[in-house]
Amino acid sequence: MSTLHAIPRPVIERMVLYLRQCQRLEREGIDTVSSTELGEAIGASSAQVRKDLSFFGQFGQRGLGYPVQNLERALRPLLALDREWKVALVGAGNIGRALCTYRTFRERGFQIVALFDSDPRKEGCTWARLKVLPMSSLRRTVAELGIELGIIAVPVEAAQNVADQLVAAGVKGVLNFAPTHVTVPSGVAVRSVDLAVELEQLAFLVTRSSAP
Amino acid sequence: MSTLHAIPRPVIERMVLYLRQCQRLEREGIDTVSSTELGEAIGASSAQVRKDLSFFGQFGQRGLGYPVQNLERALRPLLALDREWKVALVGAGNIGRALCTYRTFRERGFQIVALFDSDPRKEGCTWARLKVLPMSSLRRTVAELGIELGIIAVPVEAAQNVADQLVAAGVKGVLNFAPTHVTVPSGVAVRSVDLAVELEQLAFLVTRSSAP
Repeated sequence: MSTLHAIPRPVIERMVLYLRQCQRLEREGIDTVSSTELGEAIGASSAQVRKDLSFFGQFGQRGLGYPVQNLERALRPLLALDREWKVALVGAGNIGRALCTYRTFRERGFQIVALFDSDPRKEGCTWARLKVLPMSSLRRTVAELGIELGIIAVPVEAAQNVADQLVAAGVKGVLNFAPTHVTVPSGVAVRSVDLAVELEQLAFLVTRSSAP
Repeated sequence: MSTLHAIPRPVIERMVLYLRQCQRLEREGIDTVSSTELGEAIGASSAQVRKDLSFFGQFGQRGLGYPVQNLERALRPLLALDREWKVALVGAGNIGRALCTYRTFRERGFQIVALFDSDPRKEGCTWARLKVLPMSSLRRTVAELGIELGIIAVPVEAAQNVADQLVAAGVKGVLNFAPTHVTVPSGVAVRSVDLAVELEQLAFLVTRSSAP
């Protein structure tokens, strides 16, 4: 697995999309897929697809395309998606509520097993069968339930503190929805989803494509 | 503006983050920022920062860093963020509800001015001061209110159809939250946010950093 360290992050991001596309094709009973078709489905060029997949070994045969089932079976364990992941969610606001009930997480092996909020007024409320717990029980709950991932859905001001607490509790990866950058020690992975930045980037793409 | 066509998408994505960081520094009364500091704040190397900013002209002076206010003022119009954008949201489910009430959108100039859902039972409900409208009024509403961007927050099965309807109504950019790829004609911009893919990519990063 050590060669995985060398794979650039954008490649990994696309690999996950290739896997999802293979699973869709399998469900539709399709046996083979060309690099052009795979690329179109995820918005990449066929050359990019071939280059990406070559990081992980030889999957396809020139001119014959990729056997969908083999590709799916090879990608799944590589991407660590052949297992279940337990997730703690911090922040019982509107975004947190939406994530708690987000069906696709569970379908893809991510189970939100604990929900935390620092507001004592929310304590004890139940959302999507999860009771809102106080932050003081984070460390114990993470250890007891074997939670490996944490989601931050709190306001900007609280995000770094929550990240620190998740890391101290032993979480190995953090998905941050607060629109700010959070820092974690090496050995812990972090990804940020800034919903407003997504709209800003879209606005810029719109401006660019309508530019003279 | 025509040179903007040549700027790679990851650069644009980071430019938005640079702008946000400059605005934060300005609020804190900080005058200059080094490429190292800017990089650290957004998770990029100082070399990457210098290279990115060079796409947009000469902002800084070697050894002196970037004047925060000048950089902010130069980036804002370039990124088309010196104006308001009107947004239509389709899908009055859990994700849609969270987006409707998402304060940061409004703070950054994105105003969700209309909310649509195909479920007649939701019609007429009011969320965050927005009445849920039927899809049949999409085209007229987009024209009347001058809506340029659309957000898709509907199940996978409905996503492409909603994208088609948004495009037909005259929307120029689509932000898709359904966990599937949607196709739009050239001249229309699209970005997808697949929340489960974000967790999948995080899981892979965790596996990679703990790999021997």
